[in-house]
Amino acid sequence: MINKQLLQPESIVVIGGSNNVHKPGGTVVRNLLSGGYEGTLRVVNPKEDEVQGIKAFHDARELPPTDLAILVVAAKYCPDYVELLAKEKQVRAFIIISAGFSEETHEGALLEQRILDICDQYCCALIGPNCIGLLTRWHHSVFTRPIPNLNPKGVDFISGSGATAVFILESAVSKGLQFNSVWSIGNGKQNGIETVLEYMDEHFDAERDSLVKLLYIENIADPDKLLYHATSLIKKGCRIAAIKAGSSQAGSRAASSHTGAIASSDSAVEALFRKAGIVRCFSREELTTVGCILCLPPLPQREGGLNFAIVTHAGGPGVMLTDALSKGGMNVPPLTGPVAEELKEKLLPGSSVANPIDILATGTAEHLGIAIDYCERMEDIDAIMVIFGTPGLVKIFEVYDVLHKKIQECKKPIFPILPSVSTAGPEVQEFLKRGHVNFCDEVTLATALTQIMKTPAPAEQNVVINGVDVPQIRRIIDGIEDDGYILPNLVHELLSAAGIPTVPEFVSADKDEIVAFAERVGYPVVVKVVGPVHKSDVGGVTLNIHSQQVLSAEFDRMMQIPDATAVMVQKMIRGTELFIGAKYEPRFGHVVLCGLGGIFVEVLKDVSSGLAPLSYEEAYSMIRSLRGYKILKGTRGQRGINERKYAEIIVRLSTLLRFATEIKEMDINPLLADGDDIIAVDARILVEK
Amino acid sequence: MINKQLLQPESIVVIGGSNNVHKPGGTVVRNLLSGGYEGTLRVVNPKEDEVQGIKAFHDARELPPTDLAILVVAAKYCPDYVELLAKEKQVRAFIIISAGFSEETHEGALLEQRILDICDQYCCALIGPNCIGLLTRWHHSVFTRPIPNLNPKGVDFISGSGATAVFILESAVSKGLQFNSVWSIGNGKQNGIETVLEYMDEHFDAERDSLVKLLYIENIADPDKLLYHATSLIKKGCRIAAIKAGSSQAGSRAASSHTGAIASSDSAVEALFRKAGIVRCFSREELTTVGCILCLPPLPQREGGLNFAIVTHAGGPGVMLTDALSKGGMNVPPLTGPVAEELKEKLLPGSSVANPIDILATGTAEHLGIAIDYCERMEDIDAIMVIFGTPGLVKIFEVYDVLHKKIQECKKPIFPILPSVSTAGPEVQEFLKRGHVNFCDEVTLATALTQIMKTPAPAEQNVVINGVDVPQIRRIIDGIEDDGYILPNLVHELLSAAGIPTVPEFVSADKDEIVAFAERVGYPVVVKVVGPVHKSDVGGVTLNIHSQQVLSAEFDRMMQIPDATAVMVQKMIRGTELFIGAKYEPRFGHVVLCGLGGIFVEVLKDVSSGLAPLSYEEAYSMIRSLRGYKILKGTRGQRGINERKYAEIIVRLSTLLRFATEIKEMDINPLLADGDDIIAVDARILVEK
Repeated sequence: MINKQLLQPESIVVIGGSNNVHKPGGTVVRNLLSGGYEGTLRVVNPKEDEVQGIKAFHDARELPPTDLAILVVAAKYCPDYVELLAKEKQVRAFIIISAGFSEETHEGALLEQRILDICDQYCCALIGPNCIGLLTRWHHSVFTRPIPNLNPKGVDFISGSGATAVFILESAVSKGLQFNSVWSIGNGKQNGIETVLEYMDEHFDAERDSLVKLLYIENIADPDKLLYHATSLIKKGCRIAAIKAGSSQAGSRAASSHTGAIASSDSAVEALFRKAGIVRCFSREELTTVGCILCLPPLPQREGGLNFAIVTHAGGPGVMLTDALSKGGMNVPPLTGPVAEELKEKLLPGSSVANPIDILATGTAEHLGIAIDYCERMEDIDAIMVIFGTPGLVKIFEVYDVLHKKIQECKKPIFPILPSVSTAGPEVQEFLKRGHVNFCDEVTLATALTQIMKTPAPAEQNVVINGVDVPQIRRIIDGIEDDGYILPNLVHELLSAAGIPTVPEFVSADKDEIVAFAERVGYPVVVKVVGPVHKSDVGGVTLNIHSQQVLSAEFDRMMQIPDATAVMVQKMIRGTELFIGAKYEPRFGHVVLCGLGGIFVEVLKDVSSGLAPLSYEEAYSMIRSLRGYKILKGTRGQRGINERKYAEIIVRLSTLLRFATEIKEMDINPLLADGDDIIAVDARILVEK
Repeated sequence: MINKQLLQPESIVVIGGSNNVHKPGGTVVRNLLSGGYEGTLRVVNPKEDEVQGIKAFHDARELPPTDLAILVVAAKYCPDYVELLAKEKQVRAFIIISAGFSEETHEGALLEQRILDICDQYCCALIGPNCIGLLTRWHHSVFTRPIPNLNPKGVDFISGSGATAVFILESAVSKGLQFNSVWSIGNGKQNGIETVLEYMDEHFDAERDSLVKLLYIENIADPDKLLYHATSLIKKGCRIAAIKAGSSQAGSRAASSHTGAIASSDSAVEALFRKAGIVRCFSREELTTVGCILCLPPLPQREGGLNFAIVTHAGGPGVMLTDALSKGGMNVPPLTGPVAEELKEKLLPGSSVANPIDILATGTAEHLGIAIDYCERMEDIDAIMVIFGTPGLVKIFEVYDVLHKKIQECKKPIFPILPSVSTAGPEVQEFLKRGHVNFCDEVTLATALTQIMKTPAPAEQNVVINGVDVPQIRRIIDGIEDDGYILPNLVHELLSAAGIPTVPEFVSADKDEIVAFAERVGYPVVVKVVGPVHKSDVGGVTLNIHSQQVLSAEFDRMMQIPDATAVMVQKMIRGTELFIGAKYEPRFGHVVLCGLGGIFVEVLKDVSSGLAPLSYEEAYSMIRSLRGYKILKGTRGQRGINERKYAEIIVRLSTLLRFATEIKEMDINPLLADGDDIIAVDARILVEK
């Protein structure tokens, strides 16, 4: 729960506030004072009469009614304070900075639970315990530094780790990134990252609120809530970027299917971010750079990648920036024609207008302004990047003044790249003070832009159920009694119920029935043993059987394989091998993978992932992000596959999974694409109830 | 040419030195003075009697003999000054900062040539023109700022762009990277990046010299010289890292072969760097981070990737660092057993020793020291990373003092990651002043380490000619009269001369001869039209011909195809498709590409490149760096290929090319690997004389 007392308290009491500014009790008071808190600030300290100029109460019982309490006392004292303050002093919001709770011991966890119970009883908001606090424009209730510049249109930042939040702020401050709020959720006993986002979503005001949210996540406790509110905020016009630390930890569950082996728990995060439209970042530097970009005016959309103009007074960084942008699928188009010629006339002799526009090391503030004006007018240019440092000859206040004015005047986003942060330190600081950001390394900027560009829009959340027989799916699943891989005929029935085409097949332990089926569908056929999981390894798959004699002999042989219970016969078909798999990830739901079959999946790991249920758009985006997509389109004289049908099967499968959460792992491998048809040839489904 | 007068001048004159420290003439004098130049400093300025406290000569003719002259006057005056000084004043080294030469106009190029001629005549060293100068511990002859800390064991930095050098220094200064020398070569009229490296190589003194060289390159004028001296320096114990800007520019020459289409001019750079063992960087940030890493004690080698211990007082950065290291093929192995338990005892309750070793936000300098000591003693740990910032509560001089001592004491490299560059600014600066570096973003560090780790050792430069019939190769090449794709029989002869196995084949326009050949080698056979370049597109390839009738009919059909001059018949063989290609890159020589054939080359662009001639080691390294390498090793029950034979063919082909530089493009596509054999099935060779 988040309430007005937390966000806009009329009064704040710091329990354990002190004069020692080398301890949290002292620094939180110092930060509240230096942050200009306008309400009534109180302190409880049994040993002091006055703390940093504020009257100190010796006992919390002496306090008048107060809105928000910040606790900086030992963990064991916290529950009693919370109870007293909530019950007798009308405190309705708590920020508990103290550590020593569930993160350390079982006793601590019990203390934490008692605090939560009291807060719930009195409808109090609770931040922490074990956090650095909450920083807003209203009150600086954190004990740490740095304090970044605050601005209603700065970013909202929610962090699952206090120390990491501090280090992210360090990285942000040097770039000039401004903040609207900083939330350190600590142990997140009542409010986690998801609930803060929920609050921001449900109270969203496009006029007043910040449009950029940055998240540092160590653990996604409630993926559905994160997905729902992130998607909702983005659809309302926000942009969200996040680090999810721990991407290298392989899933701990032993994997028995192909999909199980390929899908790590990180695939689920990847799929969730893609579905929500969250920009994924992997470092503090990247997150704060992405934050700076998202605070600039929005970039337009352009088929084939955005077009940038680079205005620079040094060749090298312009070239490195061009390299990095084009690696990321963006363009630095050559500028030619009369307008370019006209611009060249107005710059110093030797300047280049080819793009990068090099106004030379001797180029002045005036030349910079002229070049920017031309770029602003050029139709094919979507945004302007300006590289301007100093070799230490002159102060460049004038140059950055022009840049400041142009950023205000121009409609196109302008990216300032000011590399001389040491030599032109005061000038860069002055520029940042005017509310601008600085990307001091051009390639870091381009890499962050690439991450933003490749993040899709949030997916529609509709479940496509047209042609999916949900009651039949439930009947089949409900009828399964034992956990494990289900029988081929049930696999077949489930896929049919979802409207996924399957190759005609028949399972029996009776040789005559098998032969009769083969005669009916026509040779060649394939036979596979039923029972063993890894059929190929035990000689349980024979392709391309052309006669009754061979079929009969193979039947006899396979029935001798240990664990064989029956034999399956299928019409043999050929085509391009495709793959679809899915794995149930606790809390996230089903992660669906698709790719080309065979070596593409097993050796090259060329798969895309999505979180079920999937829309057609998501399925297309998954297919198109495969490295081998060109093969699906058709290459080297080979006809391509029917992409629409492939997408349809992915969507249908995801719907099937939506209504059969008991399916823990499955793969259809291969699906064969032959002409306009795509047919599931082999599939395995693991059910656990 | 580089000489003692340039490096250790007894006297320096600044022609155009002035009192205006907003102009190069003023700043270069200022920098020389503040750099504590100990020789005699003179200034020529017609309008001043004294410049920044130095007596100014009104006319250069009044000067006494001087070693080094720095010119900061208009381009048009430079040649006369150079002549006067070289002829009459015994000046034997020039640094020409002035611009307005070949980079701007034809007239400028003529002035530049005149300067070079005079320098050559009098054996003078020349740096520039159009540069920021030369910065050494002896003299600070640059006009720019910042001036980094100088140290004989700091890096040598050679830059092809002055402004970019300045911005790289900005990035270096904030990390504490120290320099031994900074060379801005400007237009490089006499000394380019290659000649500076040559000098460093030829005068190398392992005791006195810096072991780390950083390069910023815009144009590789002499690839052979760069390769030779870079390799030589690295073999003597140096490490070299470089940016080559302009990697996205596609080769401008129209490509007619597969190889031509895949190999960009950047492939040649990539191949050259790999051969020399140069660490390739793509941004200023990456270059300076790599520079900092290379200045630490050398990392050992370990099969399966290095093992790092991470000591941190904050969880998040430790996890992000672990993610990034493991993405780069390095390890953060779990620490267990009695030693780990013992360490845990000595840290605060709640600390983790699992690695990352989390000593908690309340961990002290003492805890840090203890944790480092344990890591130093653990056998499986190769290096230690320490993450320590501050939430702004206390100054952390004491912590960084312990870190300083441990870095001096420990044998293992210690990487300091100090993120609080703003809040703990003075402490970080104090730490840097003691000669240390700081990696302020842990993921940037891990990415730079990955670049270093994946750079191979320099290749042996031996040409393998065993079994390559060089005279025969020359006879064939010399006998070719017309430029263009050469006839199949010549292709066959060239490959045979290089000892590359080819499939039996026969070319003729006579049907009886074709049929007789097929009968002799046995069916099935393949026929291909001779004449058209893109055979498949015109129906000029038929596989799997089993009878004389079909062969005869196909012969007749193919001879009707426009441009058909003959038909080639080959024994049909099957196997895993491989690919080898080569392209001649002006100045670099032949870039050789290898990969799996078909879609792997054409769709997935999964190729490795190397620069001819290639050693066996290089060929193995190329093969093993393919994404599809596992397929070559054998997968899914398929037998692998004979890797040694594939490497041998790559080496033999590279030797062939070494002696046949007239070959501009070629590909062997496919090579078929069948069992232990690998045989060239189809090849095309473009010769231009």
